[in-house]
Amino acid sequence: MQTLLLNHDAVETNAKMPDVIGAVSDAFAAYERGDAQMPAKSYIDLERYNGDFRSMPAYLDAGEWDAAGIKWVNVHLDNVEQYDLPTVLGTMIYSDPKNAFPLAIMDGTALTRLRTGAAAAVATDALAIEDATSLGIIGAGVQSYTQLEAIAEVRPIEKVVVSDLDEERVARFIERFSDAFEVHPGSVADAAACDVLSTVTPVEDPIVERKMVSEHTHINAMGADAEGKHELTDQLLLDSTLVIDDFEQTTHSGEINVPWKEGVLTREDIHAALGEIVVGKTNGRTAETGISVFDSTGLAIQDVATAHVVYEHATENNNGSPFDLVESDVQ
Amino acid sequence: MQTLLLNHDAVETNAKMPDVIGAVSDAFAAYERGDAQMPAKSYIDLERYNGDFRSMPAYLDAGEWDAAGIKWVNVHLDNVEQYDLPTVLGTMIYSDPKNAFPLAIMDGTALTRLRTGAAAAVATDALAIEDATSLGIIGAGVQSYTQLEAIAEVRPIEKVVVSDLDEERVARFIERFSDAFEVHPGSVADAAACDVLSTVTPVEDPIVERKMVSEHTHINAMGADAEGKHELTDQLLLDSTLVIDDFEQTTHSGEINVPWKEGVLTREDIHAALGEIVVGKTNGRTAETGISVFDSTGLAIQDVATAHVVYEHATENNNGSPFDLVESDVQ
Repeated sequence: MQTLLLNHDAVETNAKMPDVIGAVSDAFAAYERGDAQMPAKSYIDLERYNGDFRSMPAYLDAGEWDAAGIKWVNVHLDNVEQYDLPTVLGTMIYSDPKNAFPLAIMDGTALTRLRTGAAAAVATDALAIEDATSLGIIGAGVQSYTQLEAIAEVRPIEKVVVSDLDEERVARFIERFSDAFEVHPGSVADAAACDVLSTVTPVEDPIVERKMVSEHTHINAMGADAEGKHELTDQLLLDSTLVIDDFEQTTHSGEINVPWKEGVLTREDIHAALGEIVVGKTNGRTAETGISVFDSTGLAIQDVATAHVVYEHATENNNGSPFDLVESDVQ
Repeated sequence: MQTLLLNHDAVETNAKMPDVIGAVSDAFAAYERGDAQMPAKSYIDLERYNGDFRSMPAYLDAGEWDAAGIKWVNVHLDNVEQYDLPTVLGTMIYSDPKNAFPLAIMDGTALTRLRTGAAAAVATDALAIEDATSLGIIGAGVQSYTQLEAIAEVRPIEKVVVSDLDEERVARFIERFSDAFEVHPGSVADAAACDVLSTVTPVEDPIVERKMVSEHTHINAMGADAEGKHELTDQLLLDSTLVIDDFEQTTHSGEINVPWKEGVLTREDIHAALGEIVVGKTNGRTAETGISVFDSTGLAIQDVATAHVVYEHATENNNGSPFDLVESDVQ
């Protein structure tokens, strides 16, 4: 038996965004139903290299399909300067849950971008106003592209405002999307004035204030992925309907981790986990809902669900490179 | 940058046993010194498939080299019968600790056999009598071959007694090694009468009794890898100088897990961790030592150390298949 190798191009080619959004939605539902297993992320901290490794194993049973795998990923803050490598690199082993055969090894970096965009789309579908036509993007780095690609699948986005301190990144974003959307550069406040806002920055001092957003803005807070990071002011969070991906992760390292530890936010301030809305246990946006915030930390089940979509399409299309990796003879 | 793919043949070709034993010894020393990080194994239990997945990440700094990686491995008990696949399959991602680039993906199944043999050799070197010339092997499955290969590197083994209920396995073992050693089939007691004994079975009822071994036998208890398994009787353990690989793992799922939970063995019955002997903090065999037992559960640092040896040799020898797996452009 052979293992399919799927590089970044193969992952992107085979990750049809509507399918990825569907699979990630299924994953949140499975997690809520108790049909997923997701051991806590484990960390290896390497102070001498200003970096860390994270292992993210998961299994999920979506009913019509099930999937297992592990993403091995890192954050090395000196990579760009010292090694001309991205800060974050990921590798995914996608395994058959029935017998553990490694069906595929794939680029986990492309996968992360796709599943992160898909989670924002699932949340936006549940929480944004129906006729949202404008999307603000704050932070135009590598994770921002799939925000637009995914959210445009669930809402009729026409106008995009992109805000970043780095003008080159803004220009690159505009060039990438100006054929399909009306894309403008703008300030943080300009972006925040859109119907939907995705924040994708690593800031530790909040940049989006309560007064910048309208009464019905939906915000995807994607940037915070470590203790001490947050993008939205406490007042904005307190005035919002707050939806999280996972309680443990979000209180540890998500958008709400700082106000949570300070006691500004408590359990009562959390409206729901996204999975509860997906399965219909709790409502998403109603006529009474004002501002909404989705606090996304990124779950291993999203990676496994996305890998499932990629693998299924790749085998259908004969993409990827089969390789005889593991010894599969019975001795 | 490219990732090196190393299949089972490439792993075996490039894992020179003396180097693997040296690296695994270095790994135990690093762990003892506090120069290793090894988050607890995390498990995904899949009752419906009678199997599980285990993730084993680790980093170690051996002084002259350091290494990081993760092994994703499983135990699926129906694999042989239902899928014509081995019960255990493993995949290893070997990463550069400096920047997290995945240097290699390798067959983790071959790797597991090698590092398990190497751990037995490190323990045998510390605990067996110097002129040990006979080795007993109980359980002639896939893990038994590297017991002989590795132990013969540290002691002048001439005679081998192999015991297994499956005659075909015994015949295969004898055929494999009869050119280099005097190999005989035998009973459990015949094998246990040798200078060094390695037990490599999955039994839950102990098969090696106190009376079967001599006053100076060294035993490598390799088989127990889950709660409820043990190969040696309580009396034998109580009469031995007991050395473990890791306290958490061995009390949870190693040779001593059953008597430990029953209170038959306590902390005072454990002589040392293997790393303590390797760094010289505690003695190995002395003139006063009688029977000794090494309780091996298998540590993630052994895998990473072995992967280091394999990768270094493979790059030197231009072995393996380079593949452009992860997106390494800075954007």
